[in-house]
Amino acid sequence: MKDIASETDSRGITIDRVGIRDLHLPVQIKEKDGGYARVVGQVEASVTLPDIQRGTHMSRFVDILSSWSKQAVSMVEMEATLRRILDEFAAPAARVLLEFKYFLRKTAPASGHISQLDYDCSFRGTIQNGAFRFLLGATVPIVTLCPCSKEISDRGAHSQRAMLSARVNCASGTVLWLEDLIPLLEAQGSCEMFSLLKRADEKMVTEAAYDNPKFVEDVVRDTIIALKERPGVIGCSVECESFESIHNHSACAYAKCGDI
Amino acid sequence: MKDIASETDSRGITIDRVGIRDLHLPVQIKEKDGGYARVVGQVEASVTLPDIQRGTHMSRFVDILSSWSKQAVSMVEMEATLRRILDEFAAPAARVLLEFKYFLRKTAPASGHISQLDYDCSFRGTIQNGAFRFLLGATVPIVTLCPCSKEISDRGAHSQRAMLSARVNCASGTVLWLEDLIPLLEAQGSCEMFSLLKRADEKMVTEAAYDNPKFVEDVVRDTIIALKERPGVIGCSVECESFESIHNHSACAYAKCGDI
Amino acid sequence: MKDIASETDSRGITIDRVGIRDLHLPVQIKEKDGGYARVVGQVEASVTLPDIQRGTHMSRFVDILSSWSKQAVSMVEMEATLRRILDEFAAPAARVLLEFKYFLRKTAPASGHISQLDYDCSFRGTIQNGAFRFLLGATVPIVTLCPCSKEISDRGAHSQRAMLSARVNCASGTVLWLEDLIPLLEAQGSCEMFSLLKRADEKMVTEAAYDNPKFVEDVVRDTIIALKERPGVIGCSVECESFESIHNHSACAYAKCGDI
Amino acid sequence: MKDIASETDSRGITIDRVGIRDLHLPVQIKEKDGGYARVVGQVEASVTLPDIQRGTHMSRFVDILSSWSKQAVSMVEMEATLRRILDEFAAPAARVLLEFKYFLRKTAPASGHISQLDYDCSFRGTIQNGAFRFLLGATVPIVTLCPCSKEISDRGAHSQRAMLSARVNCASGTVLWLEDLIPLLEAQGSCEMFSLLKRADEKMVTEAAYDNPKFVEDVVRDTIIALKERPGVIGCSVECESFESIHNHSACAYAKCGDI
Repeated sequence: MKDIASETDSRGITIDRVGIRDLHLPVQIKEKDGGYARVVGQVEASVTLPDIQRGTHMSRFVDILSSWSKQAVSMVEMEATLRRILDEFAAPAARVLLEFKYFLRKTAPASGHISQLDYDCSFRGTIQNGAFRFLLGATVPIVTLCPCSKEISDRGAHSQRAMLSARVNCASGTVLWLEDLIPLLEAQGSCEMFSLLKRADEKMVTEAAYDNPKFVEDVVRDTIIALKERPGVIGCSVECESFESIHNHSACAYAKCGDI
Repeated sequence: MKDIASETDSRGITIDRVGIRDLHLPVQIKEKDGGYARVVGQVEASVTLPDIQRGTHMSRFVDILSSWSKQAVSMVEMEATLRRILDEFAAPAARVLLEFKYFLRKTAPASGHISQLDYDCSFRGTIQNGAFRFLLGATVPIVTLCPCSKEISDRGAHSQRAMLSARVNCASGTVLWLEDLIPLLEAQGSCEMFSLLKRADEKMVTEAAYDNPKFVEDVVRDTIIALKERPGVIGCSVECESFESIHNHSACAYAKCGDI
Repeated sequence: MKDIASETDSRGITIDRVGIRDLHLPVQIKEKDGGYARVVGQVEASVTLPDIQRGTHMSRFVDILSSWSKQAVSMVEMEATLRRILDEFAAPAARVLLEFKYFLRKTAPASGHISQLDYDCSFRGTIQNGAFRFLLGATVPIVTLCPCSKEISDRGAHSQRAMLSARVNCASGTVLWLEDLIPLLEAQGSCEMFSLLKRADEKMVTEAAYDNPKFVEDVVRDTIIALKERPGVIGCSVECESFESIHNHSACAYAKCGDI
Repeated sequence: MKDIASETDSRGITIDRVGIRDLHLPVQIKEKDGGYARVVGQVEASVTLPDIQRGTHMSRFVDILSSWSKQAVSMVEMEATLRRILDEFAAPAARVLLEFKYFLRKTAPASGHISQLDYDCSFRGTIQNGAFRFLLGATVPIVTLCPCSKEISDRGAHSQRAMLSARVNCASGTVLWLEDLIPLLEAQGSCEMFSLLKRADEKMVTEAAYDNPKFVEDVVRDTIIALKERPGVIGCSVECESFESIHNHSACAYAKCGDI
């Protein structure tokens, strides 16, 4: 059976990235305490295609990535997967993005009620010129309470839901767990969020946010500082998007530092 | 050229609705002041297909709906379009949903600055058993400030963006304009929203919301009451979804009354 | 601490549904073979609020639904959850919608390669006037190949991805498993889909689709017939949306039968 | 009234971008034939915030961008808007992204029926170190028919909807119109799309796609070549995402060339 994708190509154009997107897979993630979380992974995987090859072989991505259902994924397995892709595709560079919802238990501040909160997380791995690079990503919901609104108003201050996202590059040999990154991020808003709050908790959360007003600029700066202080972090990018309650648009800030 | 869709069908199953979805069209909407707004319409159109017909003729929907680019649409044109569909398809029933973003000018409360705010609006028309029915829909962003949070907290109260949606059925011969429906809805939240607020405005908006705390249940009840008081309204459904700033999930309430 | 939500209300308006939406929870689902699948559940839960009560207690929904992380959910647990909601809220009616991605193993038709495909599934439970009702839902991706295009063209026929969705109401005492509903739905398109296909498989899939052209109307009718033939099914609704490859809009058909 | 955002900041962190996102505005776009299209713009605008300033003034973005409702936007107005932002914010760099749906008339190939097709377009402007840069973007729907499927199958070949996106950087003084870019992109798929096709058209479109099979890699390479041949184009990036009809995931390719 003829293999059209293996034909040579004479157009002289290298394809920077070719592969698959929006593949859903059940994936296991290593937890900090040694356990395994089963998550629904959304995967994008690609290789660089040299100018003389007409096409890539898309089914091989699915074949290789399917192993993630049987074996937990962390930075180590991401590198092994990328090396296997480079090998089977004879490709000069490869990239894999794994996105998934991750849950952590949270304890309500006054009542002690336990609930689970969901966070959109990601593993980004690339190999280029032989070098492996891994970025850990998390997006956490936070409350922002506007410093300007508080300052100028006789009573109250507008607050709203915001999303704080970070991508972190760690030195080789250092592991940054989602169980550590997520609480670090949650601590940077005017207040953190919970799925389950009783009235005594709601009072504490309301007052805590009012006592800690923050612009998106403040959130981003404080997050950068907190990440830089963590041993092993050699670079990060941070974005905060606040779904303003007095506007129908968002306020956003983005900064990065180090090797990212 | 053979017309497969016109074949007879022996499976004995009536298709309640068959047609097109996510067709985008430039559309003109009649404004209250007599002008015309050019909007981007997203259209869904369908007919009921009797059990003995194999298929419908999808291209006819596009043909008929394309006239909306040349001529402004309101309730009258919606009925004409539906009657033309019934006729050309020889169908027993038809349905058209037109969704579009609509803009209204807003004046900031203290500074008087003018800006435009966007609202997701809809026209829903159906003809069934010969009877035409038209529902006007609008979704407006509002602020909700939590009455419980205000009551129990020594300072502050959490607020957030919320969406208030209504569908309204008016008596034949009555016209309800978006220019009237949208402000009616905006008045039901803890405070309304603006695209452009200077500091003096932000102070007024913050204090107004703090002085007018509302649960989603309150918003829905007050909206139902306001709509019932409007002459010509013979039925409505109302939903409020509040993107809680202290949770990563929404609070929602829905109620309806009259003929809807 | 004062409970504002428990105040009496004099506006005289019953709220048909009030509750939470877009709550994410790790949930276990009972599999047909006796095992348990861990899924990410997206939940909407509500009660009817009598006209004399000002508000509901949103945190109770989260409290009650959190038990789904520890104990697998099927129709039986859905009813127990709804009865507990009715009881704790002293509500006349309740409703819960659980949506989640579910995976099934698929075997490529020629090569025998195994992969997993994802399906958007749902459990919808309601109790109204004391009566419990449960609808099982699934949306499966299929191929549709256009009968008209095949008939009139000298070569080829346009095909595309389509989504086939069903909601099924089963007689009390009957269990319909997703492991049975999903393959039944997949069999109704021009061809089913796979995550992993080698060239020999792609040939079979291409020819199978070409030999089995179907309009969305055909898919919906054949699905209704297949569901009616299943013992215990007392009602169903079916929708097929085809993302036409020659248009930038969809073709859709919807039909229902029995008690739904 | 105190201006908190104007406070000095001692954290020592520059914010790369701070501003607003998801602002919707009615905008006028200059058409090639000299007319004006009214579109619904979705806008993101930001400035770089020096490390010693605590916050930016979000309302100024809305104020400045509101002028786009009254005066048509093209590359020239984008530069003027950015220079005004730099000036009013005393900022070292600024960025504006305007996204909108744009319509072009299309003539069905056999019947000559006219319809309008919608395209997601964008204007991206930046000023950094005093230099203005403008990228024109468009995403057009196309048909891709799989060369492998055609080659190995005795009959038929799977086809599907795909999206072809390009961002183009033109030499100063050169204008690339959407009216030219969009048809250039549409010509790169296996076949172009139409909103309205009669049976004679559908035959032509089906056969044309079958006679012109293309992988996403082919589409991207052919697009790069076509763009490079256009006078004034000094750089471009191109992506094609194909919503495979035999898979529930996409195939994607991305390449770039020149100054982009």
